[in-house]
Amino acid sequence: MRHDVTDQLETRLSPPYLIFLGDTEDPVFAKTGAGIVQWRPELVVGQLRLTSTGIDLGVPDLTLRQAVEKGVRSLVVGIAPVGGNLSPPILDVLVEAASHGLDIVSGLHTRLEAHPALVDAADSSGARLIDVRVPPPDLPIGTGAKRTGRRLLTVGTDCAVGKKYSALAISESMQRFDVSHTFRATGQTGIMIAGSGIPIDSVVCDFLAGAAERLSPDNDEDHWDVIEGQGSLFNPAYAGVSLGLLHGSQPDAIVLCHDANRKSILNSPSVTIPSLAECLDLNIRCARLTNADVTCAGVCVNSSGLPVDERAHYLESISADLGVPCVDPVIDGCDAIVERLVSSVSGSDRSNQRNNG
Amino acid sequence: MRHDVTDQLETRLSPPYLIFLGDTEDPVFAKTGAGIVQWRPELVVGQLRLTSTGIDLGVPDLTLRQAVEKGVRSLVVGIAPVGGNLSPPILDVLVEAASHGLDIVSGLHTRLEAHPALVDAADSSGARLIDVRVPPPDLPIGTGAKRTGRRLLTVGTDCAVGKKYSALAISESMQRFDVSHTFRATGQTGIMIAGSGIPIDSVVCDFLAGAAERLSPDNDEDHWDVIEGQGSLFNPAYAGVSLGLLHGSQPDAIVLCHDANRKSILNSPSVTIPSLAECLDLNIRCARLTNADVTCAGVCVNSSGLPVDERAHYLESISADLGVPCVDPVIDGCDAIVERLVSSVSGSDRSNQRNNG
Repeated sequence: MRHDVTDQLETRLSPPYLIFLGDTEDPVFAKTGAGIVQWRPELVVGQLRLTSTGIDLGVPDLTLRQAVEKGVRSLVVGIAPVGGNLSPPILDVLVEAASHGLDIVSGLHTRLEAHPALVDAADSSGARLIDVRVPPPDLPIGTGAKRTGRRLLTVGTDCAVGKKYSALAISESMQRFDVSHTFRATGQTGIMIAGSGIPIDSVVCDFLAGAAERLSPDNDEDHWDVIEGQGSLFNPAYAGVSLGLLHGSQPDAIVLCHDANRKSILNSPSVTIPSLAECLDLNIRCARLTNADVTCAGVCVNSSGLPVDERAHYLESISADLGVPCVDPVIDGCDAIVERLVSSVSGSDRSNQRNNG
Repeated sequence: MRHDVTDQLETRLSPPYLIFLGDTEDPVFAKTGAGIVQWRPELVVGQLRLTSTGIDLGVPDLTLRQAVEKGVRSLVVGIAPVGGNLSPPILDVLVEAASHGLDIVSGLHTRLEAHPALVDAADSSGARLIDVRVPPPDLPIGTGAKRTGRRLLTVGTDCAVGKKYSALAISESMQRFDVSHTFRATGQTGIMIAGSGIPIDSVVCDFLAGAAERLSPDNDEDHWDVIEGQGSLFNPAYAGVSLGLLHGSQPDAIVLCHDANRKSILNSPSVTIPSLAECLDLNIRCARLTNADVTCAGVCVNSSGLPVDERAHYLESISADLGVPCVDPVIDGCDAIVERLVSSVSGSDRSNQRNNG
């Protein structure tokens, strides 16, 4: 049985997971696996490595047989091989895992269904082949109609500045503050962490905003969807994706993400990263199309490239300039952002009650 | 032999055409055929109708046999049946045409290749089945790198406000002014008129800006690509497409298109159409990311919904407000826009020569 993860947005990955790392030795290529272990350790029973010198996520090494005995239900491909393709030794492991009845979960560019041996193994055992890069087939056209519930979207000055990390850290803070919330994933690693989502980059343009609308459906008035942003309005390759996601998400709050060391757009060296104020201004201006009340809830900065003694001043000056909390989510967490968000919402609720009473 | 129109962006439709109108009686559903006859009458030998009471494009009625005798090489589906699907009587005609060796050109939602009888007929005769909605398979990621040559993009306050018509009218004016130019199509009807192009709405988001970049490659310094716009930055369903196309097109000039009678966004009644100044401002601001020298070359208004005695004043007041020519392209043509564009470019060329000499 083969099934794409987001067919109805109800299809969910089946934990617990065995994270497959192949023979990867470079942490850059294992960040999917590392992200799952960091954010959902309770779902991870162990890792499967083809070499003892490879990446170690700090969870038990298990064989496929041991994993099955421990109740693992899915083998999650936690690596991005160079070129995105499956080498024969890696494919062999996937086939064996599928024949043991484990769902195979992959975000690779190559489709799992393109490998007949894997399809045969899955068909025989009843395992699912889940390509998290494949969007659902029945996405609607966007409408811009207002939905119930509250939404927060992370936006960026560029790609790869911490939008996923920030959204997860904000979710974690909301958990601590007992705020009703759901993390909504828009990329492959996010989907593996959340267990569902829509790979927004892979959607056909016509359905981009509609996909974003479906991702965060009507909800309780006090519920927050915390939506993983993609790209940047200032990245010439991906700004269209960012705008469609912004409109479809109709966020009440946006959190701006930035890498303190990034001076020009990734892979577009001729394009300078805008000031945070300019980036925020354009995001707010565009977001108003579908939510007139959108505000900025804070700024998340990757400050790892700054000298340690400059970090605090850098964050404080951004906070002073923009009038919102500014944190490095890896170092500080996002409590400052969530605390302010919660208090401002309760404040406006009280004011609404006054107005209505 | 089956081949998608834009495989290399070199694949071209084969004229002359027979326009197939089925049994359509409503002009709304025949605007693809009408557009081809209006803009490329020299390519159209005749029309094929299943009923004498159907839409008449004013070209000779021909049977398939007559069309073949007159040298027709492609049957172009000039209609959009309700639901976008092929009824059996329509499919029968396509199969017969393909068996006569005519290429079948379609912009319908249903894929021609999904019909085995049609595939068999095309395979036997060597005809091509060309789905103009299918983008090329090897699109790149956008880079934002500057290309040689000049580019004009039509942008809109909404969908369906005349962006394709305006781009074609501007091309026609450029022809008259002897300006080297190419009309670049981004939608199905535009592609049928131009004979090539990329259906930008159908591209996967990741490749949106890259598709727009490929659509208007490096060219001679004095050559203009006149690019058909899609959507609007203010349409909550399609703004992402518009932004990706804007960035990838890196226009030197944009022409803003508007329907004087449109008060709210099509299919999003809660979203008000912005002022022309606001729409222009956001387009220019975003366009600067990939072309710092972008300017507005004019405004094209569909004024058909205005009382005749208000039309001139309406256009004049827009022109005065924005400081650029404002025309109704159907009534006035676009000479005023092109004339000013050409003189401003020659002016800047002269000034460059002065600076360099």
